[in-house]
Amino acid sequence: MASIIGTWRMSYDSVLEAYNRLTAGASAMDAVEYAVAEVERNPQFVSVGYGGLPARDGEVYMDAGWMDGTTLRCGAVMSVRHVSSPVKAARMLCGREKNWLLCGTGAEAFAIRSGIPIRDMRTDRSQMKWRARIAEEAETAGAYDGHDTVCVIARDNQGHMIVGTSTSGLFMKEPGRVGDTPIVGSGYYCDGEAGAAAATGLGEDIMRGCLSYETVALMRTGMDAQTAVQSAMKAYMDRRSRLSETVDNISLIAMDNRGNIGAATSLESFPFSAGTDSGFSMYEAMYLDGSLTILPRRAEDIPLGD
Amino acid sequence: MASIIGTWRMSYDSVLEAYNRLTAGASAMDAVEYAVAEVERNPQFVSVGYGGLPARDGEVYMDAGWMDGTTLRCGAVMSVRHVSSPVKAARMLCGREKNWLLCGTGAEAFAIRSGIPIRDMRTDRSQMKWRARIAEEAETAGAYDGHDTVCVIARDNQGHMIVGTSTSGLFMKEPGRVGDTPIVGSGYYCDGEAGAAAATGLGEDIMRGCLSYETVALMRTGMDAQTAVQSAMKAYMDRRSRLSETVDNISLIAMDNRGNIGAATSLESFPFSAGTDSGFSMYEAMYLDGSLTILPRRAEDIPLGD
Repeated sequence: MASIIGTWRMSYDSVLEAYNRLTAGASAMDAVEYAVAEVERNPQFVSVGYGGLPARDGEVYMDAGWMDGTTLRCGAVMSVRHVSSPVKAARMLCGREKNWLLCGTGAEAFAIRSGIPIRDMRTDRSQMKWRARIAEEAETAGAYDGHDTVCVIARDNQGHMIVGTSTSGLFMKEPGRVGDTPIVGSGYYCDGEAGAAAATGLGEDIMRGCLSYETVALMRTGMDAQTAVQSAMKAYMDRRSRLSETVDNISLIAMDNRGNIGAATSLESFPFSAGTDSGFSMYEAMYLDGSLTILPRRAEDIPLGD
Repeated sequence: MASIIGTWRMSYDSVLEAYNRLTAGASAMDAVEYAVAEVERNPQFVSVGYGGLPARDGEVYMDAGWMDGTTLRCGAVMSVRHVSSPVKAARMLCGREKNWLLCGTGAEAFAIRSGIPIRDMRTDRSQMKWRARIAEEAETAGAYDGHDTVCVIARDNQGHMIVGTSTSGLFMKEPGRVGDTPIVGSGYYCDGEAGAAAATGLGEDIMRGCLSYETVALMRTGMDAQTAVQSAMKAYMDRRSRLSETVDNISLIAMDNRGNIGAATSLESFPFSAGTDSGFSMYEAMYLDGSLTILPRRAEDIPLGD
């Protein structure tokens, strides 16, 4: 049976369409690429692809990752400009024995050679926000908090599992800054024998815990996706609290190799969409009386964000 | 009690000196930086720092990582040119809340602003090897196999644990290519509550298994360093053999939070040096009758490599 899960409200439409394609027999590869690339193309979402908010220097640097659970192969690009679909570049790198993790101009050269259309990813709107922030002397202020990554995990009718991720990263980040999104084990991990996981939030915090790998490692012990993702999140929050630190902004999605989905968050509310045997819905992960609860929601009731 | 472990014969001299400093009260931070930076400075070693073998375009792109087990903080630089000590840049980034993983020109700009001396890392010897390889039309041949990373883990008298790593990566790599060395969880991981691990070999293979994180996760369950590192390696080799793939070139070092050291390898022989309560020695990890065995060796008997 086909299953799919994607982060945030922004991927709802494309994840729903990908779910329909999956149930009609599409491959997990095509479903994930479609669902992520649609978000990359949409300038309404300022944390992914076209229209993504720029780094301090006004440029849009993007990260994307890809892992195939059947082969354990990966591909990823880091800190690329002008690449219209970073997730497509990541998918194209997946399969290489070597040189599958590329950054900067080397990664851009790969995308150009591979025929991925090149585009100025800045929009009037994103440049306006950047100029306004520069005017506020943002360098002394904290970075923008809305660093939402689109992450999609799919399992197709043949049981193949794929994870793909894409983001333009922190608004006002330092040029060259890379978050968890293209980093295997942190932003994503997928092992068809166990399951897959992906992360969104402050990449620097996610990487310190290798949270996607940890979630998959727990699924290897037989835990279902929800138990695994919640255990991984709790253990990490406990570890960080022993450092007298709080985890402000991490959300995780997961899928085990039976197609069950799971999500956990340190936020008050983390929306995601998912399709399984029981149909497709928007969901919200939230704390009720202190315990993490996953509630089905109508898409219209969740703010689209930007 | 102080302990230290470092990869390959190339770090023997600096790890020995760092061991002496540690036992005399130096911090793990200073011990690791010293031991790694000495290898970076030495043009005799063609896989780390000055004199490192170039990428396809003739440039030397370097990676380095750093993690502090007391704070779980990290710093890393990816694909930097001209930075005389990449590990120093990684150490300086460690402590930041954000922007601690930097690549390319952004990472170079950070190093310059931080006062790390800039240097042309190419030597006549490394350029000669590159020209010879170009003449052989290397693009169709496989990449050079001697991609040895210097990795050092230390635990000081106060019980602080640090890991640091540095490499110039695969000879003839694609510009922008990044391996496991700067990637937390893959090239290195350190959690003072459990232990630390680091990896050397083909980075693309190491990342697919998140081997440093996995080793530390096993130490969290109470395993000592040798048991953990051997279990992590075996589980990954088994997983890869279920994909009908062999693991050709991965070696791991580890230290648990009591200061015990461990090592595992997929090679016929993996030399490393280590100092513990019982003194300092060169060792060789190798297979005898099919089982991994760690033997003390005299440094003079191990080829220095290059």
